[in-house]
Amino acid sequence: MTLFITESEVTNILSHKKAIELLDEGMKAVGSGKAFNMPRKRIPVGYGGGAMNIMAASWPEKGIAGHKSYVVSKGKATFVVLLYSTEGNGLLAVIEANMLGQIRTGAASGLASKYMANNKSKTLSIIGTGFQAQSQLLSIASIFDLDAVNVYSRSENKRNLFVSNLSKQVDVEIKPHENLENAIEGSDIICLITNSAKPVLPDEFIMNGMHINAAGGNNWLRSEISPESMEKFHLITCDSIEQAKYESKELMEATEKGIISWNNVKELGSLIYENKKRESENHITLYESLGIAIQDLSVAKYIYDQISSVK
Amino acid sequence: MTLFITESEVTNILSHKKAIELLDEGMKAVGSGKAFNMPRKRIPVGYGGGAMNIMAASWPEKGIAGHKSYVVSKGKATFVVLLYSTEGNGLLAVIEANMLGQIRTGAASGLASKYMANNKSKTLSIIGTGFQAQSQLLSIASIFDLDAVNVYSRSENKRNLFVSNLSKQVDVEIKPHENLENAIEGSDIICLITNSAKPVLPDEFIMNGMHINAAGGNNWLRSEISPESMEKFHLITCDSIEQAKYESKELMEATEKGIISWNNVKELGSLIYENKKRESENHITLYESLGIAIQDLSVAKYIYDQISSVK
Repeated sequence: MTLFITESEVTNILSHKKAIELLDEGMKAVGSGKAFNMPRKRIPVGYGGGAMNIMAASWPEKGIAGHKSYVVSKGKATFVVLLYSTEGNGLLAVIEANMLGQIRTGAASGLASKYMANNKSKTLSIIGTGFQAQSQLLSIASIFDLDAVNVYSRSENKRNLFVSNLSKQVDVEIKPHENLENAIEGSDIICLITNSAKPVLPDEFIMNGMHINAAGGNNWLRSEISPESMEKFHLITCDSIEQAKYESKELMEATEKGIISWNNVKELGSLIYENKKRESENHITLYESLGIAIQDLSVAKYIYDQISSVK
Repeated sequence: MTLFITESEVTNILSHKKAIELLDEGMKAVGSGKAFNMPRKRIPVGYGGGAMNIMAASWPEKGIAGHKSYVVSKGKATFVVLLYSTEGNGLLAVIEANMLGQIRTGAASGLASKYMANNKSKTLSIIGTGFQAQSQLLSIASIFDLDAVNVYSRSENKRNLFVSNLSKQVDVEIKPHENLENAIEGSDIICLITNSAKPVLPDEFIMNGMHINAAGGNNWLRSEISPESMEKFHLITCDSIEQAKYESKELMEATEKGIISWNNVKELGSLIYENKKRESENHITLYESLGIAIQDLSVAKYIYDQISSVK
């Protein structure tokens, strides 16, 4: 029997902390070659922009395969995950996946920070306050013992609203800032979660010891840090190099200009599989988050298991 | 509201003749650049073979986008089409798509035959009697005034059962044959619908005036006619050249060996858009049917419209 799982079921079941654990296992499986990932493909849906996006993964040892697809058009977006059995049990679930996607995208930054940031990180900066920003903060707060969160976005209203909303959800002081530099200064972990086409983080603000999650841009028309800044990083990871080669403007520009080579970029799943972490407190590290289907599949499996076990 | 559309609703609504009309319009839209098609991708689902397959399309002027995915594993197959609105109306339908796929695959051969075969074709050969064979016969019978259908497959039991079943459904004599040559001789239209890894149709059986639909193999491990036979054809079409370049063993081998060039292969949608037909009664023509998502989307839209208009 196919389950239809709603947004509210997803949010009731899936915590940010749990999502990080699930992604840890799923991305490690890709890193070890035991799970398979198909990078996102896009098809245009009209002259005014918009696209249908589709990304897929399979995880034979868990007996599952699936995909997320979403149509963004006319100012609306609809996200759906299908979860199939690979053991002959057909279509297991159709899952509304707007919240699922937000939570797993936050979890990806949480997971990257777990392996790449200083483990005593105390200060988090969130740059951008759109609909994807909340789960960045909640994920990282779920696994680090933070002292302070600093928030910057261009709109004062959105910034203050975001801080007010999030302050109710976590037990740490969250401060809005009028300028980017103040929001970044002394930070251990920075989440860039904007839809900017041009770098938002000036190179000179990138300091020793920082870990940056560049989680906003996921197509080659968007960029949050400059290609020139790439040579500052001691470690750069992404979800999928195959996907980054046509989606990550930052990495595409930096490799095209010869500032770094693709051999300087490691997949996060491989890092996890090799159980590597940052090598020095002073290193500067970067995670290019694009989003891949194994992340959706990992959390979809858990949500399905929770619901089917009580039905 | 999202509709869940079952196999039986699909078969009640979608006739073979209607499916040919729908594919005619859909593939023409791709040929004219007004619809967009993403070739099939496969991800393995385990060591014992099997895969998740996914293919997508969008058709902005109809306000739709969608995809078909299917998992083949442990001897079972599950097919699902999702139909999205691109006008902000979200997910329109989840459609069980086993029968949908069979009918549209038959319709693709019907459509190719409409443009490529002699329009006075009287004799049809069906080579192969598996689950995809029936719709090949029914589709072509729905648009040609046939005198005879000749059927060959290796298994006498399956062959006789097929002939007995199909004879109840169409008003034309259907004959089983013990050898391939007798089933092919004098035929105007031939449908190859096998899962053979090696050519089943000997080159010397391919005669002037014939149109062949090679509809069985849709991955590069399968082949129904030899690469050497390719030079016999005056016109070769396929669904998608991009897809054929990694799925059609026949075309891949023939181009690799220099027997033909990819410039000798035309997409069926382009042929339809240019409103071209065969140029001579004596020409020999070939349609390499792989299956593309615009075919699924075309029929899915019609099925959805029929059901939603009465709900």
